[in-house]
Amino acid sequence: HRVDSRSLRFYRWYYSRIWQWGLGVVIAVILALAFIERPSSLTVTSDLRYKQPPWEPPCGLTESIEMVCFVVFALDLGVKSYLIGWEEFRKNKWLIGYIIVIAGSVIDWTLSISMVCDENFRVRRLFRPFFLLQNSSLMKKTLKCIKRTLTEIASVILLLALHLCLFTMFGMLLFARGENPDENGEWEAYFKNLPQALSSLLVLLTTANNPDVMIPAYSLNRGYSIFFMLFSGFGTYFLMNLLTAIIYNQFRGYLLMSIQTSILRRRLGIRAAFEVMCCRGQSKTSLEEHVGRVQVETVLQVMRRVQMKSYYRQAIIVKAQQYSDGYIQGEAFQKLFDELDKDRIKEHPPMPVYGSPLLQKLQYVFSHYYFTVAGNAVALANVVCICTILVIDSNKSIAERDDYFLEAINCFFIIYYLLEMWLKIFSFGWGGYLSYRSNIFDGLLTVLLSVLQISIFATYRLPYPQWNPAQRGLLSLWEMVRLVNMLIVFRFLRIIPNIKLMALVASTLVDLVKNLRAFAGILVVVYYVFAVLGIWLFQGAITAPENMSSISNSSVANSTTNSTVECGSYEQLGYWPNNFDDFASSLVLLYNIMVVNNWQVFMDAYSRYTTEWSKVYFVSWWLTSSVMWVNLFVALILENFIYKWDRSHACSVADVERTGYQT
Amino acid sequence: HRVDSRSLRFYRWYYSRIWQWGLGVVIAVILALAFIERPSSLTVTSDLRYKQPPWEPPCGLTESIEMVCFVVFALDLGVKSYLIGWEEFRKNKWLIGYIIVIAGSVIDWTLSISMVCDENFRVRRLFRPFFLLQNSSLMKKTLKCIKRTLTEIASVILLLALHLCLFTMFGMLLFARGENPDENGEWEAYFKNLPQALSSLLVLLTTANNPDVMIPAYSLNRGYSIFFMLFSGFGTYFLMNLLTAIIYNQFRGYLLMSIQTSILRRRLGIRAAFEVMCCRGQSKTSLEEHVGRVQVETVLQVMRRVQMKSYYRQAIIVKAQQYSDGYIQGEAFQKLFDELDKDRIKEHPPMPVYGSPLLQKLQYVFSHYYFTVAGNAVALANVVCICTILVIDSNKSIAERDDYFLEAINCFFIIYYLLEMWLKIFSFGWGGYLSYRSNIFDGLLTVLLSVLQISIFATYRLPYPQWNPAQRGLLSLWEMVRLVNMLIVFRFLRIIPNIKLMALVASTLVDLVKNLRAFAGILVVVYYVFAVLGIWLFQGAITAPENMSSISNSSVANSTTNSTVECGSYEQLGYWPNNFDDFASSLVLLYNIMVVNNWQVFMDAYSRYTTEWSKVYFVSWWLTSSVMWVNLFVALILENFIYKWDRSHACSVADVERTGYQT
Repeated sequence: HRVDSRSLRFYRWYYSRIWQWGLGVVIAVILALAFIERPSSLTVTSDLRYKQPPWEPPCGLTESIEMVCFVVFALDLGVKSYLIGWEEFRKNKWLIGYIIVIAGSVIDWTLSISMVCDENFRVRRLFRPFFLLQNSSLMKKTLKCIKRTLTEIASVILLLALHLCLFTMFGMLLFARGENPDENGEWEAYFKNLPQALSSLLVLLTTANNPDVMIPAYSLNRGYSIFFMLFSGFGTYFLMNLLTAIIYNQFRGYLLMSIQTSILRRRLGIRAAFEVMCCRGQSKTSLEEHVGRVQVETVLQVMRRVQMKSYYRQAIIVKAQQYSDGYIQGEAFQKLFDELDKDRIKEHPPMPVYGSPLLQKLQYVFSHYYFTVAGNAVALANVVCICTILVIDSNKSIAERDDYFLEAINCFFIIYYLLEMWLKIFSFGWGGYLSYRSNIFDGLLTVLLSVLQISIFATYRLPYPQWNPAQRGLLSLWEMVRLVNMLIVFRFLRIIPNIKLMALVASTLVDLVKNLRAFAGILVVVYYVFAVLGIWLFQGAITAPENMSSISNSSVANSTTNSTVECGSYEQLGYWPNNFDDFASSLVLLYNIMVVNNWQVFMDAYSRYTTEWSKVYFVSWWLTSSVMWVNLFVALILENFIYKWDRSHACSVADVERTGYQT
Repeated sequence: HRVDSRSLRFYRWYYSRIWQWGLGVVIAVILALAFIERPSSLTVTSDLRYKQPPWEPPCGLTESIEMVCFVVFALDLGVKSYLIGWEEFRKNKWLIGYIIVIAGSVIDWTLSISMVCDENFRVRRLFRPFFLLQNSSLMKKTLKCIKRTLTEIASVILLLALHLCLFTMFGMLLFARGENPDENGEWEAYFKNLPQALSSLLVLLTTANNPDVMIPAYSLNRGYSIFFMLFSGFGTYFLMNLLTAIIYNQFRGYLLMSIQTSILRRRLGIRAAFEVMCCRGQSKTSLEEHVGRVQVETVLQVMRRVQMKSYYRQAIIVKAQQYSDGYIQGEAFQKLFDELDKDRIKEHPPMPVYGSPLLQKLQYVFSHYYFTVAGNAVALANVVCICTILVIDSNKSIAERDDYFLEAINCFFIIYYLLEMWLKIFSFGWGGYLSYRSNIFDGLLTVLLSVLQISIFATYRLPYPQWNPAQRGLLSLWEMVRLVNMLIVFRFLRIIPNIKLMALVASTLVDLVKNLRAFAGILVVVYYVFAVLGIWLFQGAITAPENMSSISNSSVANSTTNSTVECGSYEQLGYWPNNFDDFASSLVLLYNIMVVNNWQVFMDAYSRYTTEWSKVYFVSWWLTSSVMWVNLFVALILENFIYKWDRSHACSVADVERTGYQT
């Protein structure tokens, strides 16, 4: 690393919040381009039967945005490589990859421009997720962690493969074609040949065809069910969970270790800072009698220019000023920065003081804990009211509905919410009210609700029985009422911090989200690559049937009119909107396969419409998403929960009580 | 506890292997009665359409067996309560429960006899699993562990319920009945009223109706998919895995702790034994100058009468004899028994020594590691051959098959296997050969294979091309060949210890099974109770359709002839063998629900044939099996794997290599 003062200024500028944030935006933009590029996702529906031709961006629009992004990346690469120097640069594989990816993308871009955007497959789309990976050190670390685990994962997957192959052979021997055609149901449907038998059992491993695959044989003889139960029990419960155990074992202590290394690095940095300040503060002659102390004045000067949270800066400055002799020793200097490890104790501003005894009494009542509980009870009552009306109205169409009662009830409750908000502001003061997060959540929703309610009255006048006006303005009355109801239901979430156990679980979830960014990033990368590949391989493979009218949406029509469509197939289930014809629908399709249920329907459909080899794509996506990523996610949740539990089990409940419940 | 010498002899007899083993058999018998009691499971198939009336045991047969079991249990209870004494007995809830259960069962039994076995519901069947629980201290411990976790599990389940309710309300608001009947698909199929919306989303939480539930809405507008993805992503991935984390957190250190307490107890026992022997060895006068040492002779005498593995006994006696002065001090006495902690190092008997240099050479060749590898390669070749012939023959019926080639190939391989076995016995000697477990596995299968092969030749004479004789004896030729093939495929498992990583994983699995008994017991209890309840509630609820011929097994016939049966329903999918009409089929049905896929089909069918309230049974089984038990199982696997990893990571690979791979 270069350490001259120009480089340092450069360094500081590079790692400033604005530049890093800008880089993040550029990465997000280049990733989001996939939605509007050809094939664009800008249609209302992705259903093959009803899809309108989408708006296609003119040639050059997305390309020029792309070029801007490339320029930014090139600049970023330049600054980064300048900062770390040539020696380090040669060793850094990520940076070398960065150069190659940018160069490749630019070449592909020029090709694409020279063909007037008429190329079939843009290779550079596959490269894009690299920019995301490259920019996050956390993701790189996670990838390294995954790489270490691969050998063990491979051994379990080998065992799984062996399990699958052995059972396939057993199955083919057991369900071979017999003399009696009535007893060949199992052979006919699932074990006709080797690929079919393999894929039947592979799908059974994911439990996606669980009872179906055993039905023909099980109806002949009870004993056959043992074969399938052994297979799925051992494979799904034993081996798959062993995979979870192996991955978790690798990630155990991952969080603790990363925190330890970051603390170690900070200590090293502080020590270095001390050395620098120490040497500068002393003249060259006294260097021999190296006292090892710095002037408080210097520290304060530096502190004022360092970027850090104002709360911590204040705490450190206050502590530094306590050294009365004007110098700080090395040890003490280190201790000064231990302040950073301390959690910030949130102090709520003091309540306003009122003169009148009546006002004081009122303030006491409305700042009491029970007032919040009463508010929760009212919110619950409101939700119950909405629920009741929903149940009563569930069979009526919009024209039959009478929104009068609902509107009247909502109006009453919203007035209560407004009152509650004002009373709380009165008793806590503005600052005090806003210092609680739950109050901010409450207040925002209350304001939004009242604005909506007023706009309803403004557009449709005051309600009366049989109140059912025609549509005016953007939204119909029913849609506005619906929006109000949704907000009220959403507002009901305010009860969470008031139930102790739930608050603990919820706070674990919130913590989890913070630690999840690296995993989410890897998920984005994987989805992106597979979606682009899927579009390339399968775009337009499935075509809508010509007699659109006969295949209607409802299932009743389906079973009566379409006698040719087999039950459980892609066509009968109406999975038309799940296809690879644009980026957004590919993402949804990939999500559906990740969830695993009925994934064999997609696999089957695509292998019918294209070739048998398309199964490779689906199986590899299943392996990456459902086997690898979901297990990683489970490992992360375990790690987070246990870390949190170990760190603060003794004080957690007390802590949460103190800060959260007093609203 | 009583400690007089008669009680001690009693105690020893009670905890002897024979008595405990006999008690286990009695418990197994009383549990297995459910299979032959009315409704008996003794039919070939449980399919409602083809089921023959089963053989019913005459009244009094199962009842008399039951009575014998009750007498044994009463005896067991008497001995146990005599041994622990009255004071302890009163405090022990399990023993009091034991009394109540036996008394209740006997009362129910007399009722049943007095009604000449014509009662509808035998309450005592529900009590039977209690005997299993009561007899295993490990299971009681595990139950206690589960009880401790319940509060936290409840909090997560509360959060899940809140999540479900909120999303149900959102969903009902979002997919309310609109003006346009074409756009009401989602409302029609999944959100028609509150119970339907709730159950749709509950099933979505288990991912069992994943793409289907979103299809009608998603085909109208892409945006609706976000609602379903948010719901299932948050619920299934976040909250469900959080449950796993919580349960695992509770079971963390469970194994280590139980091992620690058992070591502690042993130490206490040894200490007590020392005190006893010490005091007996000394005369009363020298009691004041309490030297604290025991005679080696006493120790050796005791050792000879204690029940323990002969290997450890030998080791301890050898060590004890090393004390030359004839006395052992307290400390040394403790150390003596540390031998028990040491793993037994298996020593293979020495190879036989041959005189002739040729024989020595041959012995060297056939005892070499590569000879085993060659054997594996041959086994692989055999499996590949079978696989090829299977693929070629997969479409032929039995009459068309030509078993000549398969038979010739198998014959050749079996001769090779026999040769391999004899050569190994020649080079290792009998003892040496049998001291490897893999050889025992190999040898047994080889002997079985050759016996089968010889019996094939004896029944059907020697093979020739177009060899397809008619059936003689018990099994047809094809069935016997099939059996041979299955055994060969099974024999192929011998490769597992030869692949390092797989050996590690496989040994983890073996360890797991040892630690799994308590969990398997709890699983048996839960299955038993729910199956008995299910039979009571739903026996005979679903009746077979009258026009049996029209609903045939094959799916092609299904979609063309049955236009009235809706796709995806119990009837269309042909789930007839899954019912609650006897114990065995209830177990299979419960397993299918535990696997979760398509469980809504069963729930739907039973709520159609009986009442809506049957959903409560299915949901509660889902909660106990799929949510609770599967998570417990995952926790156990995690715990086992990590314990094993921590204990022996450094030496594990070396260790496995040393003992396992040298075959």
